[in-house]
Amino acid sequence: MSPKITTELLKQLRQVMKNPKYVQEPVQAYIVPSGDAHQSEYIAPCDCRRAFISGFDGSAGTAIVTEQHAAMWTDGRYFLQAAHQMDNNWTLMKMGLKDTPTQEDWLVSVLPEGSKVGVDPFIIPADQWKRMSKVLRSAGHDLVPVKENLINTIWTDCPQRPCKPLITLDLSYTGVSWRDKIVALRSKMAERKVMWFVVTALDEVAWLFNLRGSDVEYNPVFFAYAVIGMNTIRLFIDGDRIMDPAVREHLQLDSTLEPEFKIQVMPYGSILSELQAVGAGLSPKEKVWLSDKASYALTEAIPKAYRYLTPYTPICIAKAVKNAAETEGMRRAHIKDAVALCELFNWLEKEVPKGTVTEIIAADKAEEFRSQQKDFVELSFATISSTGPNGAIIHYKPVPETNRTLSVNEIYLLDSGAQYKDGTTDVTRTMHFGTPSAYEKECFTYVLKGHIAVSAAIFPNGTKGHLLDSFARSALWDCGLDYLHGTGHGVGSFLNVHEGPCGISYKTFADEPLEAGMIVSDEPGYYEDGSFGIRIENVVLVIPAETKYNFKNRGSLTFEPLTLVPIQTKMIDVNLLTEKECNWVNEYHQKCREVVGAELERQGRHEALRWLLRETEPLARVQ
Amino acid sequence: MSPKITTELLKQLRQVMKNPKYVQEPVQAYIVPSGDAHQSEYIAPCDCRRAFISGFDGSAGTAIVTEQHAAMWTDGRYFLQAAHQMDNNWTLMKMGLKDTPTQEDWLVSVLPEGSKVGVDPFIIPADQWKRMSKVLRSAGHDLVPVKENLINTIWTDCPQRPCKPLITLDLSYTGVSWRDKIVALRSKMAERKVMWFVVTALDEVAWLFNLRGSDVEYNPVFFAYAVIGMNTIRLFIDGDRIMDPAVREHLQLDSTLEPEFKIQVMPYGSILSELQAVGAGLSPKEKVWLSDKASYALTEAIPKAYRYLTPYTPICIAKAVKNAAETEGMRRAHIKDAVALCELFNWLEKEVPKGTVTEIIAADKAEEFRSQQKDFVELSFATISSTGPNGAIIHYKPVPETNRTLSVNEIYLLDSGAQYKDGTTDVTRTMHFGTPSAYEKECFTYVLKGHIAVSAAIFPNGTKGHLLDSFARSALWDCGLDYLHGTGHGVGSFLNVHEGPCGISYKTFADEPLEAGMIVSDEPGYYEDGSFGIRIENVVLVIPAETKYNFKNRGSLTFEPLTLVPIQTKMIDVNLLTEKECNWVNEYHQKCREVVGAELERQGRHEALRWLLRETEPLARVQ
Repeated sequence: MSPKITTELLKQLRQVMKNPKYVQEPVQAYIVPSGDAHQSEYIAPCDCRRAFISGFDGSAGTAIVTEQHAAMWTDGRYFLQAAHQMDNNWTLMKMGLKDTPTQEDWLVSVLPEGSKVGVDPFIIPADQWKRMSKVLRSAGHDLVPVKENLINTIWTDCPQRPCKPLITLDLSYTGVSWRDKIVALRSKMAERKVMWFVVTALDEVAWLFNLRGSDVEYNPVFFAYAVIGMNTIRLFIDGDRIMDPAVREHLQLDSTLEPEFKIQVMPYGSILSELQAVGAGLSPKEKVWLSDKASYALTEAIPKAYRYLTPYTPICIAKAVKNAAETEGMRRAHIKDAVALCELFNWLEKEVPKGTVTEIIAADKAEEFRSQQKDFVELSFATISSTGPNGAIIHYKPVPETNRTLSVNEIYLLDSGAQYKDGTTDVTRTMHFGTPSAYEKECFTYVLKGHIAVSAAIFPNGTKGHLLDSFARSALWDCGLDYLHGTGHGVGSFLNVHEGPCGISYKTFADEPLEAGMIVSDEPGYYEDGSFGIRIENVVLVIPAETKYNFKNRGSLTFEPLTLVPIQTKMIDVNLLTEKECNWVNEYHQKCREVVGAELERQGRHEALRWLLRETEPLARVQ
Repeated sequence: MSPKITTELLKQLRQVMKNPKYVQEPVQAYIVPSGDAHQSEYIAPCDCRRAFISGFDGSAGTAIVTEQHAAMWTDGRYFLQAAHQMDNNWTLMKMGLKDTPTQEDWLVSVLPEGSKVGVDPFIIPADQWKRMSKVLRSAGHDLVPVKENLINTIWTDCPQRPCKPLITLDLSYTGVSWRDKIVALRSKMAERKVMWFVVTALDEVAWLFNLRGSDVEYNPVFFAYAVIGMNTIRLFIDGDRIMDPAVREHLQLDSTLEPEFKIQVMPYGSILSELQAVGAGLSPKEKVWLSDKASYALTEAIPKAYRYLTPYTPICIAKAVKNAAETEGMRRAHIKDAVALCELFNWLEKEVPKGTVTEIIAADKAEEFRSQQKDFVELSFATISSTGPNGAIIHYKPVPETNRTLSVNEIYLLDSGAQYKDGTTDVTRTMHFGTPSAYEKECFTYVLKGHIAVSAAIFPNGTKGHLLDSFARSALWDCGLDYLHGTGHGVGSFLNVHEGPCGISYKTFADEPLEAGMIVSDEPGYYEDGSFGIRIENVVLVIPAETKYNFKNRGSLTFEPLTLVPIQTKMIDVNLLTEKECNWVNEYHQKCREVVGAELERQGRHEALRWLLRETEPLARVQ
């Protein structure tokens, strides 16, 4: 991995920072954040501006370029990668270390008095703008919006914004029509006395209209905005794709409809001017609802007094609670996914001892088996296929330089998932193809105990997920072990594999309460640097629980695993399990047998079925 | 309980709201918060202005009076009490109910356009001013500071501000001299590059100077402020008490000292003008450190650019970590407290069957036994002595109207504590003096399991207390039971029984990480409305734990109970305990026997000793 040479690019950028064609006044610093205009987690190639200017292409990082300096802020996952990918024009700012200045403090320390700091107002979220602007202003500088993205002005071979065909989802997948979703949304708007709602997150647009796309890798979304009024629907989207008869039919674009359900299709690029027109036409008490993560540009289009900002939008919250059709779809997707993984693990068991299977080969094989399943669309994230010390790198993705061969002497960790038309999967299994050491089994068993503690937890309706995080750690903590990531995230239904507003993590506090129908991951782990990584992840559905006293009718909740892939019993030290935990494993494996076994049988995959049956033999506790 | 007649008082208040003698311009609304100028939890009689104007004397509530209306906001604990104590001039605003407006929203809905809303700038915390002012301003109104407290202008028989003698604490109690505390504070100030620190919380002033007072009931504090510079110390305090030779000697007021340790004593009332003088004399980059809960008046004395505000001050954080002398003092105090409670419970066991012991008599008896112990100063909070249905009222305090007689048919809950010169106690025990029902024992045992789960928890250094809250609930949750309060609070060392910055509660997120030497309560409960209440509370000390792997040298923590009072085994359903839990109870009781038994022996309290020995017989689990 040799660094990108950026001397010439930085020179060009510094020129446009002073070019009156692009900036009203010269800017002394220019910020290049990671995101796109929708604050997406995964972004399209045309939005990888920070990677273009610096060479560093990790998922998180912010570049700031001044007349004299170029600096990159990123977190511990990427210190090594950033250092390798950037040339010596760049200073690496290691976030999380005590002596690393914040971006604002650093700017204040290097800028001449009364400087202007430029940023693309479409890329920076409004809440971040506010924070940064405040600090800069109090030090005598100004944060200024630069409408034309300055990276785009020098990025001559910038790829085009993707504009791929749309997929329409009928009621058998979505359970609710887009019309009914609009009706529900308007009723939420009426409750909060807002007249307009601006949909800025890509997965929210996709969910609302029961459409999917493939503009971004892994997330089945498409570039679009929507503005919903009490009597109007405007969809901002580009390309021929809206001419597709199936899409037109789905959106009823050519039907005679009540005016309040008539969708006006407008160019993607016209969102700002349209929103400004909405903003200009508001009468007193007419509020406009936006996410507080919406871009500064769109937020500013609405005069401050008319803005109604919330951390989670009503769509985000509605989307998180899956209906019966979505839940059934998710179940189907997870059964197919389990079939693929049974095939994979059976294959690995035979091939690994030959010494020919690398991490990349294993990942490709997993994708191959998944792609054989009905309604497979794509992977839901980059497969983490890691063996030995690579397993301890939490966000590892094998590349030729790091690609390790699987062996009977090392633990193998596979964290992978797919998008099927009926659901999204995300599963991690940790396997040993030889004989694990007592220490490896001990660590694995603590992780398993944590996994079970969350999965089997019973809690009152209205409990926030972050209150369950410690359950996953308790067994590890008892022995002085821990893991430095959250325990779970929300999972979309044929949508983003990471979605809000719920999750299970010590890091968040603003998560929405869990309710029946929500779907999250349960994925505790343990990582021994330079040696191995262990993680056990199921996707689980929040379901009502039966309890003796039922919280005075408040209602009880628990989880049902949707993932049905055997947990390697060879890795379990049965004597560390309680009777209850042992029963949990046996019942889980019994369900894998029944449900996935039937599907393997149906698909005629007899060898994988034999593997499943062997791997799901009941554990016996020594008394 | 008949309501206070407030017609005349409200008339007078509405007059002064327009009187140019007190207000620059008439105010259309006047806010009367609960607190004092130090944002204390317990306040002196002279600060009970809200109770004076309304009649409602619960611990939490805010009154707002306009030309037409008088409204009182309080929470669920006080709906009944407020309704009883207030006459029909007042509207009760039930906080936490869906349809109850916030104070700001209500003001906006009732005020004529362009109104002024007045408040005493010394009583309202700066963060609350900011929030309220913003909402009012955006609706066209103004929040204005009214320097003279308008309640004081009409409160003709307002009690004097207390000014009681001070208690000096020597090194054997405090472990660290006030000089060394100043040195440590200045080093924290230097770290953050601030030149001044303003001490506004009463317990912080008391802790810093190793002084105690009795200006406020239960909290051994005195009215004072302090302003610490890098070379100066100013203590703002009234009265002759500073002329006491012991105090002068303790503060070295008459010695020749290095100038940076020379304490300048100034009148309590001069804090604002002195702080304004500090504010006016600042040169660029000279910051002043204040709590963000400090009053608006003091915060405004420092120009905005020079303020350094934090939720927890360095004193609050240092005070929370008890040193060896303080820890030893806390241990001694808890042994004495246990002696008093063994006496009490032995006495109750004999007297309750006679039907002559009321809740008030029991509370008084507890105080009597405590007052016999060495260095007893006062109670640390109003004793919660409650039997039967009164036990379900979480913040119950027996008064003649509610006073119930203890019997062999009802559960008795006693939550009580004391201030000793060497430490502060807070303990809850739930007892039955007859035969508890199977259901009562079941609930008690779940609460006990929760208590043990926290007390025996092992966790990595740096864990925040709120992450342990769910451990206390897990056993209750499994059966569909819960309790609607946090699990623990910080406890001062001969200081406030409730102190920050740590605690164990699902409600907080901004708590500071637990570290060895911190002291918190562990008090899960269960409450059955109209029937009974159960709570088991120990004060526990954070100590290093031994773990197999010690979190890669990050260090392990756990708790050691300081409270050593038997947990009634009669209430325990042993079959619901695991072996580990059963051992915990037996080991705890063994320690009570040894430590408290020795002290009972020493004090010649043989009957109580026999009671203790009987109550601490080991539990035997049926296999």
